[in-house]
Amino acid sequence: MRMSVVKYSIFFLVLVTFSPVFATRTFKENEPCKRLVLYYHDILFGGNNTANATSARATNGTGLGNFVLGMLVVFDDPITKDQHLLSTPVARAQGFYFYDMKTDYNAWFAYTLVFNSTEYKGTINIMGADMMMEKTRDLSVVGGTGDFFMARGIATFHTDAVEGFKYFRLKMDIKLYECY
Amino acid sequence: MRMSVVKYSIFFLVLVTFSPVFATRTFKENEPCKRLVLYYHDILFGGNNTANATSARATNGTGLGNFVLGMLVVFDDPITKDQHLLSTPVARAQGFYFYDMKTDYNAWFAYTLVFNSTEYKGTINIMGADMMMEKTRDLSVVGGTGDFFMARGIATFHTDAVEGFKYFRLKMDIKLYECY
Amino acid sequence: MRMSVVKYSIFFLVLVTFSPVFATRTFKENEPCKRLVLYYHDILFGGNNTANATSARATNGTGLGNFVLGMLVVFDDPITKDQHLLSTPVARAQGFYFYDMKTDYNAWFAYTLVFNSTEYKGTINIMGADMMMEKTRDLSVVGGTGDFFMARGIATFHTDAVEGFKYFRLKMDIKLYECY
Repeated sequence: MRMSVVKYSIFFLVLVTFSPVFATRTFKENEPCKRLVLYYHDILFGGNNTANATSARATNGTGLGNFVLGMLVVFDDPITKDQHLLSTPVARAQGFYFYDMKTDYNAWFAYTLVFNSTEYKGTINIMGADMMMEKTRDLSVVGGTGDFFMARGIATFHTDAVEGFKYFRLKMDIKLYECY
Repeated sequence: MRMSVVKYSIFFLVLVTFSPVFATRTFKENEPCKRLVLYYHDILFGGNNTANATSARATNGTGLGNFVLGMLVVFDDPITKDQHLLSTPVARAQGFYFYDMKTDYNAWFAYTLVFNSTEYKGTINIMGADMMMEKTRDLSVVGGTGDFFMARGIATFHTDAVEGFKYFRLKMDIKLYECY
Repeated sequence: MRMSVVKYSIFFLVLVTFSPVFATRTFKENEPCKRLVLYYHDILFGGNNTANATSARATNGTGLGNFVLGMLVVFDDPITKDQHLLSTPVARAQGFYFYDMKTDYNAWFAYTLVFNSTEYKGTINIMGADMMMEKTRDLSVVGGTGDFFMARGIATFHTDAVEGFKYFRLKMDIKLYECY
């Protein structure tokens, strides 16, 4: 009888293990497997601020509307853990954004967070719409490498400071739901 | 003996539950967990159609070939449920495309579908090649937010109408295979 | 007694099958489910090499730094299985890169590998930072279509040859960890 129990159990075990796992995998929005709250600082090149500038216009706005639609900015921006521009960066954000709306300031981002410190080595890749008129807006973390191997998640933007086109700071609340 | 059955079963249950689930997760191409058939309308800014235009050239074509290779267009385009440009939009498509081929018209897209209606709130992020000479072509849904939290899938493009560089309409068949 | 065993086992089987699978899904970096080692050839249009050129500048570098920060290049580049530019391409790489650093050459890529051969039909979508000063660097495979339906993984770049701005070759080691 004991053997019978074992036999049946092994049979079911095999069945279960190799049966297609119906991926009832769920993620809870308030339970990321990793969370990083970071600040992004962008100082736009204006012609005579080479030493400080961290980004530059690859294209100017087109004539469509009054909100620089079509202005595309390439950046290599410092990322800090607090709001201070001059804090030691914990990462770089490399990528671009452009303005895309006729009736208001609105942007679209794609970029990579590049970590190269004792704490983290690796990258996080992010893209999505930055609806600047919203208090917060969510972009997608679409992949990661190194310490963030195969990550996915959400990057929530919050505008933390704006000084015209010279400087702006975003709070980026990075929540990863896939961690490996 | 009964106890023995229970004991064994519990043992195997624990084993199965905590054993690494070999992700034999499968998706069937014809069984998305959510599907949205949408129409994308693009009206390119020509200098004097500010009221109607929904997109603008950030760069012009380069001299390589005769198919505007290098022309990059930034858009904030209306998305409708039917083919009619003037139907109430159910979403906006914010992003860009550019032409990239020397020998024919061929494009590459990256954009966000922004939903903000009673039906859906959230975004879907898409990127991929738009091989315009193909009847249909598949791009990747690489992420989502809000009602489309952590989505992935396929966006199938079909050119539905073209009026030179002034207007074109794409049917976008969005099939999500990861829904949470 | 036998019935009891069966009953219990069925009970547990049902429990396990329908219980939320805690996705202890793991990927091992050295065990991709598919691997493709490919070579990418980029011949930049210089004005009089239309026949050979595979890419062109959509924008020129800005004045920020001396490393063409802001130069954005659109490409439709041949992909070969070996290092030879003139080998029969097994795919095309369609997308763009731009330079983004003030103090050194550093780039950012987003593109689609388009396969259309007897071996493979479909696309692989890739984005990420190309830290050119590193011997190898990892970008994210963020999606796929056709034979690469819903793929995710890592694309490791290695600079294989550089001839100024005229030509460069990258070894792309594509490792997919999600295959369906």
